[in-house]
Amino acid sequence: MSEFTHFSPDGASRMVDVGDKAVTRRTARAEGFVLMQPDTLRLIQNREFTKGDVLEVARLAGIMATKKTADLIPLCHVLPLEKADIEYSFPAENLVRVEVCVSTEAKTGVEMEALTAVSVSCLTIYDMCKSVDRGMEISNIRLVEKTGGKSGHFLRDSVAI
Amino acid sequence: MSEFTHFSPDGASRMVDVGDKAVTRRTARAEGFVLMQPDTLRLIQNREFTKGDVLEVARLAGIMATKKTADLIPLCHVLPLEKADIEYSFPAENLVRVEVCVSTEAKTGVEMEALTAVSVSCLTIYDMCKSVDRGMEISNIRLVEKTGGKSGHFLRDSVAI
Amino acid sequence: MSEFTHFSPDGASRMVDVGDKAVTRRTARAEGFVLMQPDTLRLIQNREFTKGDVLEVARLAGIMATKKTADLIPLCHVLPLEKADIEYSFPAENLVRVEVCVSTEAKTGVEMEALTAVSVSCLTIYDMCKSVDRGMEISNIRLVEKTGGKSGHFLRDSVAI
Amino acid sequence: MSEFTHFSPDGASRMVDVGDKAVTRRTARAEGFVLMQPDTLRLIQNREFTKGDVLEVARLAGIMATKKTADLIPLCHVLPLEKADIEYSFPAENLVRVEVCVSTEAKTGVEMEALTAVSVSCLTIYDMCKSVDRGMEISNIRLVEKTGGKSGHFLRDSVAI
Amino acid sequence: MSEFTHFSPDGASRMVDVGDKAVTRRTARAEGFVLMQPDTLRLIQNREFTKGDVLEVARLAGIMATKKTADLIPLCHVLPLEKADIEYSFPAENLVRVEVCVSTEAKTGVEMEALTAVSVSCLTIYDMCKSVDRGMEISNIRLVEKTGGKSGHFLRDSVAI
Amino acid sequence: MSEFTHFSPDGASRMVDVGDKAVTRRTARAEGFVLMQPDTLRLIQNREFTKGDVLEVARLAGIMATKKTADLIPLCHVLPLEKADIEYSFPAENLVRVEVCVSTEAKTGVEMEALTAVSVSCLTIYDMCKSVDRGMEISNIRLVEKTGGKSGHFLRDSVAI
Repeated sequence: MSEFTHFSPDGASRMVDVGDKAVTRRTARAEGFVLMQPDTLRLIQNREFTKGDVLEVARLAGIMATKKTADLIPLCHVLPLEKADIEYSFPAENLVRVEVCVSTEAKTGVEMEALTAVSVSCLTIYDMCKSVDRGMEISNIRLVEKTGGKSGHFLRDSVAI
Repeated sequence: MSEFTHFSPDGASRMVDVGDKAVTRRTARAEGFVLMQPDTLRLIQNREFTKGDVLEVARLAGIMATKKTADLIPLCHVLPLEKADIEYSFPAENLVRVEVCVSTEAKTGVEMEALTAVSVSCLTIYDMCKSVDRGMEISNIRLVEKTGGKSGHFLRDSVAI
Repeated sequence: MSEFTHFSPDGASRMVDVGDKAVTRRTARAEGFVLMQPDTLRLIQNREFTKGDVLEVARLAGIMATKKTADLIPLCHVLPLEKADIEYSFPAENLVRVEVCVSTEAKTGVEMEALTAVSVSCLTIYDMCKSVDRGMEISNIRLVEKTGGKSGHFLRDSVAI
Repeated sequence: MSEFTHFSPDGASRMVDVGDKAVTRRTARAEGFVLMQPDTLRLIQNREFTKGDVLEVARLAGIMATKKTADLIPLCHVLPLEKADIEYSFPAENLVRVEVCVSTEAKTGVEMEALTAVSVSCLTIYDMCKSVDRGMEISNIRLVEKTGGKSGHFLRDSVAI
Repeated sequence: MSEFTHFSPDGASRMVDVGDKAVTRRTARAEGFVLMQPDTLRLIQNREFTKGDVLEVARLAGIMATKKTADLIPLCHVLPLEKADIEYSFPAENLVRVEVCVSTEAKTGVEMEALTAVSVSCLTIYDMCKSVDRGMEISNIRLVEKTGGKSGHFLRDSVAI
Repeated sequence: MSEFTHFSPDGASRMVDVGDKAVTRRTARAEGFVLMQPDTLRLIQNREFTKGDVLEVARLAGIMATKKTADLIPLCHVLPLEKADIEYSFPAENLVRVEVCVSTEAKTGVEMEALTAVSVSCLTIYDMCKSVDRGMEISNIRLVEKTGGKSGHFLRDSVAI
């Protein structure tokens, strides 16, 4: 059975030693969803009515969060990214999908940066819309794809919500 | 139809003016779930085997995240908290539930602090366990209860995952 | 002759003791300008062509900067704001004007928060446009108005650039 | 006509992908000015009288700000610097000039680090002196020189205030 | 026997609930020492020779650290200070003493802010002087006095190094 | 006599130019001690009674502090670490020893990261135990060993407290 690499044999937390790992191109793609009232999604999409752009605020929050990942996740290494993109789509009338794509050259992977950006982008959508819809839920935050490093290519089998 | 208070009538983002609101006791309770392989949850629970305490790392990450909420969510007010608690439970053999309880006296609510702590705590569980289970998902991050302020008591009707 | 309150009589830097000051409503309004090629300003304004919204990115950067003021300015007190607004106008074909309005209830003034938001908003405009116009200049960052506290109402006489 | 590289073709903000750019030595030099009452400048310079050193506080604030640039400017890459120097001069009896010189080896330029340091250093001068001169102005923050990268050597033509 | 208030009865870390405590004036005074070669201390004191001011850099670092205390110490509450002073003295030819005095009005004490400022100020002295004296030691960081709150006045009995 | 490299010949603070230094493997080991009542140490060690794990909280605080070193120490370079470990031992019935081991590949040394982690870990022990023992002292924070770079191997002669 595999082990938790973030602990020493004695159970002490540690920042894993990546000194001997190779610097390779690392990419990660993650997604998440915000479930809301259809009226709320219509408000987000109806820029004539709303004027403000909820998703652009959420996008900037997500991109900035990639730079704070190591500050939020205790045992993460500091990994300056070379690229961060966030896209939104609407798979249903009550659903916003957030997809984050990040990459860099580093000794360890960048999936935490992608997942953190998804989470903060979803939280920001919640914050922007909570005055009209307090019951929104954030769901299915998960890694979709990952390349680079010894563990090789990861691609999630089925990406159904 | 309600409006997005984070935008001015022209659609400009703004930090909402709370100057005229009353200082009252504000509490918020939020939850979230990490879906994982049953083997992964057994590893988390089996402290004899694992030694390290995944949930304590996640708890501290979540509590510290409450203090970074306004830095992460662009239009959030800075709200020093007076209390932050995080509890874990295991509603199924493949599920960790995270519940965060926060409170303070302030002119505006603290639900974003609770939801941010849930998110960061879930992300930390992912980070701690990703060496054994890359397919974990974070789901159903949502507000459970909220008190204080003009909008009154909010209690989520059905809290089923 | 007046004294620099940030120094002790011995010349040591200090965070000024505001313990005996009254909590009053404090507001500050500050402005700044970005001088650019007329073509650059047309690009910013021509959302049909550019798609992206330079000023909304700059606005969010400015609002978020109000929350980092005490982290940037060594001897500033930490002052949670109750309101932060940023507006843009175009006094000439080569000029963007940034105006920031902030307020809170506190024992000391919030002009540094307003001036910091103006500065970071201008820097962000520079960053967003530097691929087309490296020679832009940021100018005339200054306090326009200030209320609250013992020093009373300050209103800049002539606000000409 | 050039394009804003910080936006995707759809107008979405993004952290530009610099993955394919070459790591080269990057330097940037930027300047800015604080316009003040001649009496205020005399106070800054008269260390016998003032004891404290306004410009040293401003210098440290500027150097520290280089390390916060990517936290302030939403779409900036994180770029650890290898050098940061700040110099002050007095081109007129009512004027402090701030010049910042930074360099590193990286895939993208460091002009935002230099400009941010100039801005924060000027803001700190304002903060240190505002008890004696509320009407100070910060002006002419601009890039003076830039080397490294595909765009080559940039040297501002005329550097008149 | 007393209990560790930062843990729940189950041993879970928590940010202690201070909601029911009274807002009172809180002060704390802490000290610490840097032990160094006498030559190193002479260099610090000999401003004719050194030009730069080691202790002013350390002072600013200490004051700024008071504002980061809650970010560094996991379970600390965020407590905006109303005053922060740092003084240096030289009790022996190889010893710098750092004393920090802080105060605010709050529901909980500010000793961690004072102790953190002492620590960061001592670390900065180490950093500034390490090119000439790598063997320096930081010692006897301790609370000297504390007022405010239910626990009353604390004054350390004997303050000998 | 050696010079303070953090100052220019004119005495201005600066971030030392490390552009011409070689990237080599850098390690640092530092230690520190918390002196407390024997009863307090027994409480820390008696997990049956206390339930919570003081040292694990302190360990995470220390590891996270390595990532904030450049934000705390004004003239430090930003140095992403590749490894950070913290160990505790009990050399006497009233003494906790903290040892931190860090490493990375960089152009300059990582002793400040190690010393900062020791300090913040000791401060966190203080914070966790201050409800039972306000008189604790933090002492003998010092560099134990350092490798890499032009200055070569440093190993402290005698490590007696």
